[in-house]
Amino acid sequence: MRISELSSRSGVPVATIKYYLREGLLHAGERTSATQARYDDSHVERLRLVRALVDVAGLTIQRVRQILSVVDAPPPSMSDLLHLTVDPDDSTDTPLASSLVDRLGWQIPDGLGALGDLERGLEGIAASGIDFSQAHIEQIAGAVDRVSEIEIDSVPTESGAAAVAYSVIGTELVAPIILALRRVAHARHAYARFGDEPTDASSA
Amino acid sequence: MRISELSSRSGVPVATIKYYLREGLLHAGERTSATQARYDDSHVERLRLVRALVDVAGLTIQRVRQILSVVDAPPPSMSDLLHLTVDPDDSTDTPLASSLVDRLGWQIPDGLGALGDLERGLEGIAASGIDFSQAHIEQIAGAVDRVSEIEIDSVPTESGAAAVAYSVIGTELVAPIILALRRVAHARHAYARFGDEPTDASSA
Repeated sequence: MRISELSSRSGVPVATIKYYLREGLLHAGERTSATQARYDDSHVERLRLVRALVDVAGLTIQRVRQILSVVDAPPPSMSDLLHLTVDPDDSTDTPLASSLVDRLGWQIPDGLGALGDLERGLEGIAASGIDFSQAHIEQIAGAVDRVSEIEIDSVPTESGAAAVAYSVIGTELVAPIILALRRVAHARHAYARFGDEPTDASSA
Repeated sequence: MRISELSSRSGVPVATIKYYLREGLLHAGERTSATQARYDDSHVERLRLVRALVDVAGLTIQRVRQILSVVDAPPPSMSDLLHLTVDPDDSTDTPLASSLVDRLGWQIPDGLGALGDLERGLEGIAASGIDFSQAHIEQIAGAVDRVSEIEIDSVPTESGAAAVAYSVIGTELVAPIILALRRVAHARHAYARFGDEPTDASSA
């Protein structure tokens, strides 16, 4: 198909498709003349994935490119993939995060990138003036641990490429679902706890 | 204290403080002359909270203003607060989210704003081309439900204002912690499952 049909089938404007081609997020079509190229279903699929990562997961183009480069040239094993998220030379100090992980008894590699994010999150809570106890955060961590365990248990093992795509894309696309489910469940438990009936219960 | 000392104590530049004052994120100081005002500890605390919401939770200034207006003029009860997240006239179609909530057997009010976010997240997964089964998402939802239950159980009940501040600010500031903990726990379970030792285990 031509770029105009690729645009109408994917719902992505032609100008955006050209931008993705330039940025390397979309593989080139098959050249049919100096100014035209032919695209196929693989382009439609890739555009859907890029839009999901940009629009739903809210990632930057740079981050999407990073993710797709891992998906397109997957490391030979899941453990190699895990090492991509570790910088053994990373000496950034993460006292709050490291202390939490120690108290939880979690065995993790040194230099794990997510520890820095955890540190910033814990600093934010400390700065907020709201009293979140350590015990409370540990309880939350225990429940989040179960979420992660379910996710890792479902990683397909038939092929390294499938495992990598599932893990890398799943980490990004499931995150907004987890946060939305959390807020839906907040409402459910808050109504239960604070004794209020839904304004218009839809019990059939 | 003067604005210069407020800046050095909070670590927020004077120009940013003035911006927050104009935008209504920070209450005015006590005027001491036509061009000067005096600030106190309440301004330092508020600035820390605003920075945490902007830098850690990644919220827009508009969203921070919205949150602070609820914290500063809390609704009379938690159930009133919950109703703020519900638009009973919202007829947006959320077929994927509503079907998931039905299968989970969760009782929630109609028009819950988070349902729209859940719908977009589920659409993103559907568009990604990665095969996430319904059963898998339901399992994740069950574990996320436990996170939310722990959070709601810890809402303080001494005063409505404390409960509102805790809920509204906690929803935003705990979200990045949950996502970071999830990724730390991914590494822990992936290493366990894929039989790889941490590159440099820090077991003391």
